Amino acid sequence: MTVVGVIGGGQLARMMIPAAINLGLELRVFAESEVSSAKLGASHVGDFTNLEELVAFADGVDVITFDHEHVPLDHLRHLGEAGTAVFPPPKALALTQDKIVMRQALAAAGLPQPQWASASQDNLDDALDEVRGLPCIAKLPVGGYDGRGVRVVETVEDLADWLALGPVLLEERVAFVRELAQLSARRPSGEFVAWLPVETRQEGGVCAQVLSPAPGLSDLLRAEAETIATIIAGTFDVVGVLAVELFETRDGRLLVNELAMRPHNSGHVLTEQSVTSQFEQHLRAVADYPLGSTALRTPHGVMINVFSDASMDRFRAVAEQAPDIKFHSYQKAARPGRKAGHLVLTGSNPDDIFARAMTAWELLEPRKADS
Amino acid sequence: MTVVGVIGGGQLARMMIPAAINLGLELRVFAESEVSSAKLGASHVGDFTNLEELVAFADGVDVITFDHEHVPLDHLRHLGEAGTAVFPPPKALALTQDKIVMRQALAAAGLPQPQWASASQDNLDDALDEVRGLPCIAKLPVGGYDGRGVRVVETVEDLADWLALGPVLLEERVAFVRELAQLSARRPSGEFVAWLPVETRQEGGVCAQVLSPAPGLSDLLRAEAETIATIIAGTFDVVGVLAVELFETRDGRLLVNELAMRPHNSGHVLTEQSVTSQFEQHLRAVADYPLGSTALRTPHGVMINVFSDASMDRFRAVAEQAPDIKFHSYQKAARPGRKAGHLVLTGSNPDDIFARAMTAWELLEPRKADS
Repeated sequence: MTVVGVIGGGQLARMMIPAAINLGLELRVFAESEVSSAKLGASHVGDFTNLEELVAFADGVDVITFDHEHVPLDHLRHLGEAGTAVFPPPKALALTQDKIVMRQALAAAGLPQPQWASASQDNLDDALDEVRGLPCIAKLPVGGYDGRGVRVVETVEDLADWLALGPVLLEERVAFVRELAQLSARRPSGEFVAWLPVETRQEGGVCAQVLSPAPGLSDLLRAEAETIATIIAGTFDVVGVLAVELFETRDGRLLVNELAMRPHNSGHVLTEQSVTSQFEQHLRAVADYPLGSTALRTPHGVMINVFSDASMDRFRAVAEQAPDIKFHSYQKAARPGRKAGHLVLTGSNPDDIFARAMTAWELLEPRKADS
Repeated sequence: MTVVGVIGGGQLARMMIPAAINLGLELRVFAESEVSSAKLGASHVGDFTNLEELVAFADGVDVITFDHEHVPLDHLRHLGEAGTAVFPPPKALALTQDKIVMRQALAAAGLPQPQWASASQDNLDDALDEVRGLPCIAKLPVGGYDGRGVRVVETVEDLADWLALGPVLLEERVAFVRELAQLSARRPSGEFVAWLPVETRQEGGVCAQVLSPAPGLSDLLRAEAETIATIIAGTFDVVGVLAVELFETRDGRLLVNELAMRPHNSGHVLTEQSVTSQFEQHLRAVADYPLGSTALRTPHGVMINVFSDASMDRFRAVAEQAPDIKFHSYQKAARPGRKAGHLVLTGSNPDDIFARAMTAWELLEPRKADS
């Protein structure tokens, strides 16, 4: 039996457990704490920046993969050299750990992205010119997520504290009509599959809702999104699920916003909607197993993130009203801005399921819905 | 958080784990061995006939439910009196532990079933008359499953060894055109839902294939199957999933063959095909949570049981050819006649999916397919 080790005990690792049970894989989770979301699968609780702990965890594991992208690359190279497969490989994962590295790599591959520059105190004027001046977007190259480490820069003073820390990624402020995500997966052999692109709606820099597939997307842009994912996956030897977050611009282009090389919040709707969930697909890919069908069982789906108390008790009122809504609780302690669960509704009428999913969400998060 | 304790560590408990993860329930499994199919959820390994072990397991558990029906009823009554909910309740579970008790209870409820009699050495002639003479079917009242404890009786000599042990259930040999199963679920509050009936195809007394929904079933019989399940669930206060195995007779009647008050092999296809799997529904029901929709996401589904080596390696060849086939490995040691996993395929063309599922199964079990 293949043994897959997952570093990180968050909800993504949690949701890999059902897929592993169905496939008959053994999943072992390297969790950060005893109360992690994926604690049921935890075989080790500790510090993923500690090489000795990683080496001990890797013993008996056939392939290492990830719930997050924060494991030091040198440690992963060490594990790989010692004989444990690491997927995605450090070469690919590097793009998700440092946004400047990602921009450089995408540029080298000729892929469409916002105008960008690596800014320092020395080259600030040139960098601002590169991104068409102010206002622009600034990102800390390392460690940001869910709106953290991202700022809209109106004046150069807004950048001073970050520039004192090191290089800052500047990006043009893209005139986009909406954001999309292209979910896909690649095996070590190169086999690649893609789902239809989804539309992601953000609030405060955090994904709030996902519509699947993206409503009204032209065939041209649908094909382009898949082509972009194919090129990224192949160029950088991605293995596992690859999520490409995209801007659809006012002038009809797609630009790469962010990358993730693991199951991604934008793909949660696929668990109910697709023949193969992103969690099953990720495990198939990293275990070098034939990839599953990305066909949709139901033509439309909507996912809404839940940030406050996502307990079964709270969901009871929703379940009374909507027996077809699926609720996933991550069993995480509530913390402002932290995803605690999500809702999925699928069906044949996209307007109907969106309206019903929003009604359900308002029952779950009444204060947030009012604000 | 509701804590559900499951007694028994087989594949049914195993497949409850994904549902518990999604719902945010804590599932604790009382397993028979360290290598049980549901070992990931095991909080206790021991002997379910030992009351002290059961009492210790029940500590901190809100509701006890089951992977099988073999726990002594007196032990369960004790747990209930000590304050742990037990679902299905012992009163209902009694029907699944003793087939003579079941026949008596169904008769008292006026439900259609084969002619039957409780035979002993003293009343054998009368009992045979009750079941329209030989040949007939004999069943050990307690402990039989998957074709064990069931015999076709051609002469009275075939019964001698069983009659020496105690009462034997005799049933008429029903002239049936096919077997059906009606899956349903009931909450403590009485809320009841049913899926569409499925057709089950047996080989050697063991379910080989399930077609969902049962092809060509008349509206009349569909309604009757649901009515039978409603009456059984309500009369005996069933809580959880109820599977009613039925004969469809040549003269167009439905007769109750067997009952199970837990997820059942005939309902595995629902995991992919229905909005709510039987495992999720069972947990919703025993946790007294609103029941989920039994609507089908895809119009047709087929499930085929796998008895030999059901490893991912074996399935690789199938997955290469059919990316939409779902395979569930139970991670059990191979043993002749023991279910080791199952395949599910869903789609819009029932003939196509049946043919493709059989092709896949032949790849998995070539020797069995040849025989």
